[in-house]
Amino acid sequence: MNEMDFLAGLRGLPLHPGARELEDDCAVLEFGGETLIINHDMMAEDTHFLPDADMADVAWKLVALNLSDLASKGADPVGVLLGHTLGRDDAAFLSGLHEVLAVYGVALLGGDTIASTKASTFALTAIGLATHSPVPSRKGAEVGHDLYVTGTIGCAMLGFEGNVAHREAFNRPRPRLKEGRALAPHVSAMMDLSDGLLLDAWKMAETNAVTIHLDTRVIPVADPARLDECVRWGDDYELLFSLPSGTQPPVEATKIGSVKALTDAPVVFGETPLRTSEALGFRHG
Amino acid sequence: MNEMDFLAGLRGLPLHPGARELEDDCAVLEFGGETLIINHDMMAEDTHFLPDADMADVAWKLVALNLSDLASKGADPVGVLLGHTLGRDDAAFLSGLHEVLAVYGVALLGGDTIASTKASTFALTAIGLATHSPVPSRKGAEVGHDLYVTGTIGCAMLGFEGNVAHREAFNRPRPRLKEGRALAPHVSAMMDLSDGLLLDAWKMAETNAVTIHLDTRVIPVADPARLDECVRWGDDYELLFSLPSGTQPPVEATKIGSVKALTDAPVVFGETPLRTSEALGFRHG
Repeated sequence: MNEMDFLAGLRGLPLHPGARELEDDCAVLEFGGETLIINHDMMAEDTHFLPDADMADVAWKLVALNLSDLASKGADPVGVLLGHTLGRDDAAFLSGLHEVLAVYGVALLGGDTIASTKASTFALTAIGLATHSPVPSRKGAEVGHDLYVTGTIGCAMLGFEGNVAHREAFNRPRPRLKEGRALAPHVSAMMDLSDGLLLDAWKMAETNAVTIHLDTRVIPVADPARLDECVRWGDDYELLFSLPSGTQPPVEATKIGSVKALTDAPVVFGETPLRTSEALGFRHG
Repeated sequence: MNEMDFLAGLRGLPLHPGARELEDDCAVLEFGGETLIINHDMMAEDTHFLPDADMADVAWKLVALNLSDLASKGADPVGVLLGHTLGRDDAAFLSGLHEVLAVYGVALLGGDTIASTKASTFALTAIGLATHSPVPSRKGAEVGHDLYVTGTIGCAMLGFEGNVAHREAFNRPRPRLKEGRALAPHVSAMMDLSDGLLLDAWKMAETNAVTIHLDTRVIPVADPARLDECVRWGDDYELLFSLPSGTQPPVEATKIGSVKALTDAPVVFGETPLRTSEALGFRHG
């Protein structure tokens, strides 16, 4: 099965209301007046990191990409549970884990340690508390709203290719937690970028049954000569969000497009209507 | 690093108070009057299941072994997050997942789906609500308390070996959720068996700084002729708990020993003092 088929299968299982139909970045659970935001993301050798990767970077990224999902809900991280495969540079992994937990003030809650004879896979569950109700969702972008993105797209791609100035962007992404909390009361929809701007914009458009128009002249990219690649590469962990027209974002962000009525193309990239999500970004499986 | 060294490294990180020093089965988190019980366990090809395993069984077991940890806290399961590696018999996995969620009335909360070129690793995070305060812990067994176990030890071993009558015990363990909830108000300490009776009793003894005496004549084993193997094999997912002397357990269970003052042997197995945990049971890494 590919990822889409498997997800469709999962949607046929008994879903918790907090699962948000498996169409959002995180689960949202209400308990005794508090709202918990829970995320689970994995990283596997070869798929998400190269065999010669610095394991301190892998540990950092594993935590960071989960915190980035919490950021898209405006959540305050509380703790993480780690699923760790032993057998690579475990000491380096521990040091990177220590760094990222310290930088973001997040505590370890528990987890599991396993041996594997074949490949290293790392899992993380991040738990946070919502800071605003309702909790932002991918759903909520309406016709007439503006679309924004934080930061610059394509830095992770350049870092992956070896560009020293952008190496940190690939190895040690900085989840936009502060921005997410500031944005939560204002956005009509929000998600974090992980699979590339075009594919993630496509997902937001589909969830909202709208067409998203992206203005190619203003998308902030790390290398303007490679715009097409920058918007297709993933791993940037910026926030993509919509605001009612006229609302100014309370954080630094660039207005990159607008939300329009659905046509046969969920995304219009400059003058180009995109009618299929093939080749738009990173897909698993 | 082996598992013990890695765990020692993890204990040097910023730990959440709910992590219980990483010495318990689950994390325990208080939110607005509710107490959440959270567990994360993984299963990897070759380490936890054979490459020709029925993936429906693997999915069942993945959920069941996490629910077993919740059972040891007397928790009521709420939902699970799944970390799934695509590429094996994903349809069978989905069907086994559906079965186990339906049987235990547990809902899917979310998760992640990845591709891996090397090996299949599955992760699960189970979330439950405590039904009793204080939440049972591995810690609390005191000198003079009696030690009990639910069910029969060694069934999973026989099932793994191909004994048809016990195949379900290995492939589809039944977490003792009902028993855990009934026991929670009464036990002084409780944990679930996963690494074998001797090794798990050793862990309970160490956590409580006591010596646990096991009465070899009464331990309920699937094959009395193979007592030594039955108590060293893992995967039984029964509950091991201590009760103040004279207290009768409210569920079916066998009194298998007693808690005594610490000597140089944390476990005494019949007449045999066990002074090292080597070769007592299943260790990862």
